[in-house]
Amino acid sequence: MTTDLIIRNVRPLGGAPTDLFIRDGRFVEAAAPKGTDAIDAGGQIALPGLVEAHTHLDKTLIGTDWYRNEVGPTRNDRILADRRAKRELGIDARRQSARQIMQTLPFGVTHIRTHVDVDTEIGIANVQGLVATRAAFAGLVDVQIVAFPQSGMLVRPGTLALMEEALKAGADIVGGIDPASIDRDPVRHLDAIFALADRHSKPIDIHLHEPGELGAFCLELIIERTRALGLQGRVMASHAYCLGTLDAKRQGTLIDALATENIAVMTVGSPSAPALPLKLLRQSGVIVASGSDGIQGTWEPWGSGDMLERAKFLAQRNGMTADADLEAAVEVCTFGGASGIELHDYGLAPGCHGDLVLVAAQTLAEAVALTPHERTVIRGGRILVRNGQLSEDLPHVD
Amino acid sequence: MTTDLIIRNVRPLGGAPTDLFIRDGRFVEAAAPKGTDAIDAGGQIALPGLVEAHTHLDKTLIGTDWYRNEVGPTRNDRILADRRAKRELGIDARRQSARQIMQTLPFGVTHIRTHVDVDTEIGIANVQGLVATRAAFAGLVDVQIVAFPQSGMLVRPGTLALMEEALKAGADIVGGIDPASIDRDPVRHLDAIFALADRHSKPIDIHLHEPGELGAFCLELIIERTRALGLQGRVMASHAYCLGTLDAKRQGTLIDALATENIAVMTVGSPSAPALPLKLLRQSGVIVASGSDGIQGTWEPWGSGDMLERAKFLAQRNGMTADADLEAAVEVCTFGGASGIELHDYGLAPGCHGDLVLVAAQTLAEAVALTPHERTVIRGGRILVRNGQLSEDLPHVD
Repeated sequence: MTTDLIIRNVRPLGGAPTDLFIRDGRFVEAAAPKGTDAIDAGGQIALPGLVEAHTHLDKTLIGTDWYRNEVGPTRNDRILADRRAKRELGIDARRQSARQIMQTLPFGVTHIRTHVDVDTEIGIANVQGLVATRAAFAGLVDVQIVAFPQSGMLVRPGTLALMEEALKAGADIVGGIDPASIDRDPVRHLDAIFALADRHSKPIDIHLHEPGELGAFCLELIIERTRALGLQGRVMASHAYCLGTLDAKRQGTLIDALATENIAVMTVGSPSAPALPLKLLRQSGVIVASGSDGIQGTWEPWGSGDMLERAKFLAQRNGMTADADLEAAVEVCTFGGASGIELHDYGLAPGCHGDLVLVAAQTLAEAVALTPHERTVIRGGRILVRNGQLSEDLPHVD
Repeated sequence: MTTDLIIRNVRPLGGAPTDLFIRDGRFVEAAAPKGTDAIDAGGQIALPGLVEAHTHLDKTLIGTDWYRNEVGPTRNDRILADRRAKRELGIDARRQSARQIMQTLPFGVTHIRTHVDVDTEIGIANVQGLVATRAAFAGLVDVQIVAFPQSGMLVRPGTLALMEEALKAGADIVGGIDPASIDRDPVRHLDAIFALADRHSKPIDIHLHEPGELGAFCLELIIERTRALGLQGRVMASHAYCLGTLDAKRQGTLIDALATENIAVMTVGSPSAPALPLKLLRQSGVIVASGSDGIQGTWEPWGSGDMLERAKFLAQRNGMTADADLEAAVEVCTFGGASGIELHDYGLAPGCHGDLVLVAAQTLAEAVALTPHERTVIRGGRILVRNGQLSEDLPHVD
């Protein structure tokens, strides 16, 4: 499915204009032979394919009737509403996930890690739906599936066995959620998911909304288990709001430990949740990834899924306006995400996979600030989106 | 310049489908005579023209080369960078303000209050530029001009006299800024601007970024002067971040006093500034308006100026996701803004000015969440924008 392609007059990461050559699906330094297919980028900026490191493809309501949100304010209200909606609206994870992928592909989102609900009501049906979607988009958009115990794991006996079943059915990553405030037993929760990951040689990605010192304690437990099992580079703490509320000394100690154990942090930059110290995390050597979280579902009614817009939100939440900071925010949504979800050969350098998105902007910072649409998206030399228009030979989505 | 017009199959504020009739520039209940011009809204939602209650039309860099932002983190860094840019880039307030108006008109923004810099370097040149723009858009987009001492007033002798000159040149409102942290003397600053407003029978709109108890003290001084001079209904506190950081009791006392003196509050919902208690303010009877603040300038590189998107930002900053809360956020960006900036006969009821924007959405909450473009904007029965396309007979903007 790969095509050799020259992209002329393109500015990688906003730098000087050059030509890029994709051969056999990868960027190469060699000169392209005469007659190779070429497109003129007209001086547009090239970014590597954008990385969506945290979303919930099985939960989006894109394309359905408007869901009237009358959900209460607590996380538990939302979990209950979410489970009720799954039952009553008959949300089809396969169809809905494909819809979100097709919505975000024109933005240049080519790599997605999605948490997928596993619980004692739906079992692993959503994971199976996602496995089907992943197959349908193979080679176009890469999908990583996290077996996610949204409704709790220990508090819902049977869930852990279902998570193991999900892994056997094709899930790539072991999920977890608030080991104290939702699952009521941080040590047993973490022991269980780390043991599961260890047994199946899978990474871990845990939702950690726990506030303040409770969150810090859970993070310490995660750090200890990552070290003990030698899982450095394979664990992601998603949200980790506690890092945004501790005093500087406590925060610094935890961040250093995350860096030492190579535990990645995923932050959405939500306007209503504590802001993570983006600069400090990166300067301390912690891998920072980002994601859209839920898009147009029962949890939140909005969301485009554009990871370049997400870079803007990250900057805005952190009060950053300088060009250099906006460039750093783009890194989070590209290279940071790629490291965080363990992509290999990612980037625009020779030898990397030939994936890129073209954005019309004078500078990288302008691309973040104005998030121009009508992008061109190329995967392994194949043009999937041209000036915002999806190619006609993409999978049919109902 | 008004036209009689029937808008068929339209859903005012998301309600049941009906027809609206605009005659002599206002909505009327009477049946329209045969042959009256009509458009079919196709079931779209009608909102009254969106109200931009706080922006800086003279500062936007829309349409200019990318401004590389290397500005330091403090408010003073930004004020200095802003003044330097005015000098070095030769920003033309008349042209730039017209550009922003034309950018936001397709969103349905028909009423704008803009703060306009007055200082000892540029004098009242920007106010004069805005007076020209206001005239060019008369009857299309209403512009209110605040004489704004961005660089300080008492700390820059001569500024107060320039503000008075600005009023004589056509400014509508007396501005002010951080009477303590920038102008270094809260009582004299406030005494001066209240006296100026009183002398010219003008409203007051003051930027109040002062944090915590310092802000609360300044707010008390504003409340006292509003009461003493009988300026109820004519004073707006813009930003008023302190309201987002006080303890509940202190916050409640101040909010009650704002309600009693009918002082409006303007909040942008910035993700990096303290969040104002939107629900509590409104429940307590305080008029809440909103605005975009600066758009694409030296202060911040982004901003669309879409006040429906702003409703989304307000909801997001307050952690609101329920439909009822999103509907309240729309009210802030329409009726709240209209009250806050003293518009009369505003709304979709008979007798009100015949201004509206049509939005394609199933519900008001969906309009907020997805902020559909391709809107239709009608002013006094005249169609200024049809499905996102500007009418050809609008003023030429260079």
